[in-house]
Amino acid sequence: MSDILIKNVLVLGQKANVLIQGKRFSSLAAPADTPAQEVIDGEGMALMPPFYNTHTHAAMSLLRGYADDMPLHKWLTEYIWPFEEKLTAADIREGSRLAVREMIKSGTVFFNDMYFDVEETIDVVREYGMRAAIGVTFMETHSKSQQQDKLNLLKHWSDPTGGRITLTVAPHSIYTVGRDMLQLCSRTARDLGYKLHIHVSETRKEVDDCLRDHGTTPVRYLDELGVLGPEVVAAHAVHIDAEEADILAKRGVTVSHCPCSNWKLASGTFPYKQVREAGCRITLGTDGVSSNNNLDMREEMKFAALIAKGASGDPQTLPASDAMEIATRNGAEAFGIDAGLIAEGKLADAILIRLDDVCMHPLHHLVSNWVYAANSSIVDTVICDGRILMKNREFVKA
Amino acid sequence: MSDILIKNVLVLGQKANVLIQGKRFSSLAAPADTPAQEVIDGEGMALMPPFYNTHTHAAMSLLRGYADDMPLHKWLTEYIWPFEEKLTAADIREGSRLAVREMIKSGTVFFNDMYFDVEETIDVVREYGMRAAIGVTFMETHSKSQQQDKLNLLKHWSDPTGGRITLTVAPHSIYTVGRDMLQLCSRTARDLGYKLHIHVSETRKEVDDCLRDHGTTPVRYLDELGVLGPEVVAAHAVHIDAEEADILAKRGVTVSHCPCSNWKLASGTFPYKQVREAGCRITLGTDGVSSNNNLDMREEMKFAALIAKGASGDPQTLPASDAMEIATRNGAEAFGIDAGLIAEGKLADAILIRLDDVCMHPLHHLVSNWVYAANSSIVDTVICDGRILMKNREFVKA
Repeated sequence: MSDILIKNVLVLGQKANVLIQGKRFSSLAAPADTPAQEVIDGEGMALMPPFYNTHTHAAMSLLRGYADDMPLHKWLTEYIWPFEEKLTAADIREGSRLAVREMIKSGTVFFNDMYFDVEETIDVVREYGMRAAIGVTFMETHSKSQQQDKLNLLKHWSDPTGGRITLTVAPHSIYTVGRDMLQLCSRTARDLGYKLHIHVSETRKEVDDCLRDHGTTPVRYLDELGVLGPEVVAAHAVHIDAEEADILAKRGVTVSHCPCSNWKLASGTFPYKQVREAGCRITLGTDGVSSNNNLDMREEMKFAALIAKGASGDPQTLPASDAMEIATRNGAEAFGIDAGLIAEGKLADAILIRLDDVCMHPLHHLVSNWVYAANSSIVDTVICDGRILMKNREFVKA
Repeated sequence: MSDILIKNVLVLGQKANVLIQGKRFSSLAAPADTPAQEVIDGEGMALMPPFYNTHTHAAMSLLRGYADDMPLHKWLTEYIWPFEEKLTAADIREGSRLAVREMIKSGTVFFNDMYFDVEETIDVVREYGMRAAIGVTFMETHSKSQQQDKLNLLKHWSDPTGGRITLTVAPHSIYTVGRDMLQLCSRTARDLGYKLHIHVSETRKEVDDCLRDHGTTPVRYLDELGVLGPEVVAAHAVHIDAEEADILAKRGVTVSHCPCSNWKLASGTFPYKQVREAGCRITLGTDGVSSNNNLDMREEMKFAALIAKGASGDPQTLPASDAMEIATRNGAEAFGIDAGLIAEGKLADAILIRLDDVCMHPLHHLVSNWVYAANSSIVDTVICDGRILMKNREFVKA
């Protein structure tokens, strides 16, 4: 870990020199001659918070473009599941590597994952220096011994990176995990201090089946089981009513909104305005590449903003500043990462974006241009936990 | 005009050498040693049709990020119109230049424009070698002598580029142009062989006002005036019913769908599925930068696809192949440009996209990756009318 001085960079509206000491920003107004092991010329660039992707399945990068534009059931049963059945641990490592490279290239420093063979993904995250919360996935189809292995992994886990990687307890959903296992997952998460990552109310079918099987809706069902709490990250939450939004808010649940995936699969429209007004912490996720088909959080911000405006009929909904908030600091906050905004004392997670791109002209409003106009190829440099992961678009490994 | 040989490029599913002679593709399977003045190494790239942007206001690039996330009326009256009032011809040249550079960088070779001081925009298009249809805009607020100047311009125009630039007659809309002028515009377009470019049914307010003032809806009103015909390019067509879709189809009207702008302004949802089923030619446009906020047709394709799926509730709506069709060959066809697909004998409009980008891996499906996963920074080379406009992302001027 070395000190980094970023010179002449646009930060919080002015040109300044930014000093990173160890893992944290120590000054946003450092003298130009401050000594540092690494000096970055920030001329023509802006220092911005990076992205925290709160719902994905990294290794599914292998399925990019494998199956699109078809009904959900056919897509899952004829394409996605048969493909996944054949995946080896080596494949999952390769898919995770592809995902990690794509995420860093597009300015993401953290992802909340849910998949299998977690050791493979963890190794790649270590290698590239990102942060991640890696879901240990529970489904009823797994054998008892597999489930016990998962519980043991959670119990005995220690982060090899000193703060960048954690596990989560990840019961897949209410339709693949029964009552007892949901409650076991909940207890495990609470006892061991993990987040609980679960798909909730992604499709109309999920809600209808829940009504049929449990006589209530998914959020109410989970609440009755005592599963909802501040450690829960609920992916999607598309089909929820006003009372369910209130329940999520009251329990301190974080919602991971995945607009591209929801719209590509025609799953439904996340009620952004209502959920925000209910006081819920909303974060942004790309979901897996197979239903997006990328991990590009810049594009996800724009899509989230446009969908929320169009769906609410109000162009004031989800302004550019909200888009940045849900894509950056809300995600960091949800996972207890003391980062997500550029401020002295915060963990040094940041990106440098090039302002010379045609889409950044004119520069009436930096955040607007970044959310609505640019694309992620203007990410020049990525810093995570005080370490440079990419510089001039080239990976820098430890 | 010189011959161009593109070697070892992925084209229509296989590696081949592509020969361009003069303005046209002469072979998609040329011997590797074919002599040519210019040889492009296409290794690791795919040759694709470029984009035809069928509705924009190029010079409004100057307003990028100037005003976002506010109600339409406030946005127009307090921000956009006051800004536009101050624009000089030099500003319009500068805005057009910014737009043309952005369009070429993102793989667009043609745009259908509607703005003012058309000579400025025409000069920039000539300079950079693009194609364009430049709207001569009519509004009731213009003076009689301005209108006469516009009619004279249309009457005496000759394309200085021998086929790349045309004018269009562009009555702004039914709410800014009265009955008589609409019919004058229609006659002028038909008599002189121009397209007629007009905003139609963009907002609910436009429809309501039309009902109040004319007792019918905008499409019916235009049809009653005899304005609708195969020369008409109707931008937006958001608020139309099934019968209006049929009228547009029957009259041979081209619709320019602008999803990003419609959703950013919360104007409404274009009924893609119904309009397509009615048999209408649908093309894609970005609208002006002030309501998008870019001119990126790759992004527009993805948004169009996702919005059409979400709005129809059917993930099969607007598949990747449709997205390509509306963004490329339908636009060329609408403007009588013998291009928009890669085929021997067609005008040589094309882009080379890099396949080494992480978002293009794996390459299960080239078109899916281009529509859903990539961003436009992978456009390496742009060819228009047999001339290279950009190579290795650097502009090549005549």
